[in-house]
Amino acid sequence: MKINCDMGESFGSWVKGNDAEVMPYIDMANIACGFHASDPSTMDETVRCAVDNQVKIGAHPGYPDLIGFGRREMNVSAQDLEAMLIYQVGALESFCRKYQTTVSYIKPHGAMYNQMMKDEAMLKTIMRAVATLSPQYPLVVMATPRNDVVREFAEQTGINVWFEAFSDRSYDDEGFLVPRSVQGAVHNSLELVTDQVTQIIMESSVTSISGKTLKIDADTICIHGDGDHALSIAKAAMQCKGLQNEN
Amino acid sequence: MKINCDMGESFGSWVKGNDAEVMPYIDMANIACGFHASDPSTMDETVRCAVDNQVKIGAHPGYPDLIGFGRREMNVSAQDLEAMLIYQVGALESFCRKYQTTVSYIKPHGAMYNQMMKDEAMLKTIMRAVATLSPQYPLVVMATPRNDVVREFAEQTGINVWFEAFSDRSYDDEGFLVPRSVQGAVHNSLELVTDQVTQIIMESSVTSISGKTLKIDADTICIHGDGDHALSIAKAAMQCKGLQNEN
Amino acid sequence: MKINCDMGESFGSWVKGNDAEVMPYIDMANIACGFHASDPSTMDETVRCAVDNQVKIGAHPGYPDLIGFGRREMNVSAQDLEAMLIYQVGALESFCRKYQTTVSYIKPHGAMYNQMMKDEAMLKTIMRAVATLSPQYPLVVMATPRNDVVREFAEQTGINVWFEAFSDRSYDDEGFLVPRSVQGAVHNSLELVTDQVTQIIMESSVTSISGKTLKIDADTICIHGDGDHALSIAKAAMQCKGLQNEN
Amino acid sequence: MKINCDMGESFGSWVKGNDAEVMPYIDMANIACGFHASDPSTMDETVRCAVDNQVKIGAHPGYPDLIGFGRREMNVSAQDLEAMLIYQVGALESFCRKYQTTVSYIKPHGAMYNQMMKDEAMLKTIMRAVATLSPQYPLVVMATPRNDVVREFAEQTGINVWFEAFSDRSYDDEGFLVPRSVQGAVHNSLELVTDQVTQIIMESSVTSISGKTLKIDADTICIHGDGDHALSIAKAAMQCKGLQNEN
Repeated sequence: MKINCDMGESFGSWVKGNDAEVMPYIDMANIACGFHASDPSTMDETVRCAVDNQVKIGAHPGYPDLIGFGRREMNVSAQDLEAMLIYQVGALESFCRKYQTTVSYIKPHGAMYNQMMKDEAMLKTIMRAVATLSPQYPLVVMATPRNDVVREFAEQTGINVWFEAFSDRSYDDEGFLVPRSVQGAVHNSLELVTDQVTQIIMESSVTSISGKTLKIDADTICIHGDGDHALSIAKAAMQCKGLQNEN
Repeated sequence: MKINCDMGESFGSWVKGNDAEVMPYIDMANIACGFHASDPSTMDETVRCAVDNQVKIGAHPGYPDLIGFGRREMNVSAQDLEAMLIYQVGALESFCRKYQTTVSYIKPHGAMYNQMMKDEAMLKTIMRAVATLSPQYPLVVMATPRNDVVREFAEQTGINVWFEAFSDRSYDDEGFLVPRSVQGAVHNSLELVTDQVTQIIMESSVTSISGKTLKIDADTICIHGDGDHALSIAKAAMQCKGLQNEN
Repeated sequence: MKINCDMGESFGSWVKGNDAEVMPYIDMANIACGFHASDPSTMDETVRCAVDNQVKIGAHPGYPDLIGFGRREMNVSAQDLEAMLIYQVGALESFCRKYQTTVSYIKPHGAMYNQMMKDEAMLKTIMRAVATLSPQYPLVVMATPRNDVVREFAEQTGINVWFEAFSDRSYDDEGFLVPRSVQGAVHNSLELVTDQVTQIIMESSVTSISGKTLKIDADTICIHGDGDHALSIAKAAMQCKGLQNEN
Repeated sequence: MKINCDMGESFGSWVKGNDAEVMPYIDMANIACGFHASDPSTMDETVRCAVDNQVKIGAHPGYPDLIGFGRREMNVSAQDLEAMLIYQVGALESFCRKYQTTVSYIKPHGAMYNQMMKDEAMLKTIMRAVATLSPQYPLVVMATPRNDVVREFAEQTGINVWFEAFSDRSYDDEGFLVPRSVQGAVHNSLELVTDQVTQIIMESSVTSISGKTLKIDADTICIHGDGDHALSIAKAAMQCKGLQNEN
């Protein structure tokens, strides 16, 4: 179980996250590519920081919406979506080459990610774009009870997928995320998040909002790099992984 | 003598230039990378068009200034300038990979190009960025009587340079461009441009604004892809080259 | 019946439309405000051109999406939408003050306009924003068989509305626009557009796609300022109005 | 002596400064207008906060350069500069109207401010733009030994100027700012800044970098709203003003 975290989300002189502090405690850095966050110099610095910490680099492309941080849904044609992905991944790849490394995976950001999980046509467009970029790059998608369907699409397209679990979101009894509009959808306390991280890493399960234990089939767990507790959560997650490896 | 031309300068729904018509008559397409012009879908289409016409693809990075079309000087740090170049060239490279080709050279655009020719520190920064990207990519710079100095910097940095002559600008008696503020600095008639193109290609010389014949040491000649006469000039240039090759 | 037309849709060095030629033949100029098109200098020039031709100036705010020309739907919060409108209308107002005139009405652009017509909550948000800006500014909305509902919302909000008919779109038998996905949804020939303009101005009716004559309750008719036929259509519309005024 | 402070410098989800905490301790809020910082919703909130605290609102227009925070010099034509100012001030004015207030003054930001102080032609262009916007809006400029020259230009243009002193910059013996490249140019300690603020407010003088006491002819003093000490400095400045008023 790999720990992934959004990184490089500063923009110009505006700082977001504690990248340098959190980087040592994660396995995979999802690096923003300048459309919803980041800028060329921030990308350079973030790639260097990931390389220094031997963290895998993933492209984290988003919608061209800095003000909305890529969290506002947009209605984009398949052709424009593909071109957006090719552009952003290539830009990040170029910084990777500078530091003798490569992009290792692709994880769409924010609204692009959410729309991808709701809209099969869009998921397939993104998969085809990934295949065009490189069939070597796995696409990170949300782990749900419908992993099989997603896996089948990926096979048809000739790419790999990695499924991810969420550290700070409640799951319903079916194994889907509780919508943000429902109370308790997002875990706000450090304790709840740490518990969920621990359970996902140690037991490959989550406890649903109604108390049911659900198996979760995930390759990676997403934690957040900003917020007060980011560093504590990253450390707790890394510690769990250490314990698990000892067993 | 290769004919180079700025291409892919449309932006979103705004069209600039006659790329599809001009492409068959040029050797090198300087493709904008989204900072001063172009957008992901335009880049995709432009790379495809260049590939279809067997035209070499060059990255044409510029300042992040769409409204000013990259023609307004900006005071950018060496670190930001390097990152800007890495970002833009990488984005274009990604579309090239889609079409099984590569970037073949780098030519800065507009104010970035002009500042590079005036400021040695900036020229060296750009050369180092090119070396970081790939020592294989030649940097296109303006042919002047100071080619030797530029060539020496390039050797020190470990990169190649290609010198370019201009089809539509007047030269002074020393072989530098006449400043735009001087009357006659830019050739507005099709005839004048065609004559200069012909002379550069056939005789490796230009006639200065005062009537002097000057040898010009250039690898490539720059023509413009927009304007009423673009296509005529491109055809005339290509025809000259054909004649020259017969000799 | 006033003729309205989108104006000021150039951006930096990219030109769109024939504003100077079309302006004399319209009554209302919907001027882009820099989010989906236009820039400060273009707005200055467009306002001046409208004033010179004694054309009413309307704010034409859009989504912050230059690449998509404001035509891609975005999911924006009510608060952000209101602020976007206040910002854009104020920017245009400032150029109007320079030329001793004022904004006379507000017409949302592109996807913002379309979403407003489909989503009552959004329509009400826009109406409240208009009331905040100035209850004097009428809001331009699409004339449909549901004008009464829209009129009631406007009364509740304390603003005025102007209904507009379209010159180049087909209507279904109920008086709604035929979706763009249906063949024949957009009139491509000059003749069809001119006929529809004439009928709307002279007879306050349209002929539906199946041939039915429908009364249309509109204050203004929208024509387009770009495209090959823009000037011809504008002239035809203005001529109709002249004939009608003689009667 | 009024205390002015840059406010509204957040952008989208990126926060900069402690506006809500600092606002009670200042007299004039220089509010960013969306080109180098801020966005429509941030401007709305900042104007509301200023109004709640009875703080005068000033427009703080900058270059269109978010990544560089408006601190990179740009070479912009007089026409484009004027239009940029009209656009940004109008956008802010629109939020002021929402809260039944108005813009009270104009202070260019960052590189635009610095270039204005170095380049008389640019200073005059900005003055003319202010006159166009409203001769009521004073222009805030740096207090130097050359105040007379600036005052004369302002009289010729028909506008007012307010001179400002800086809380955290060293002055040379002539009363100009010590260039940033010189050691000691910027006061980094809370104590040095507080001392300079106190001296400017209480004694209308500064102590130069070599220890000389210089009279400074200023209407307002600029403090910074971000950084660790922002709140302490604002409180100290306000306290000085209270003491001075008691005398």
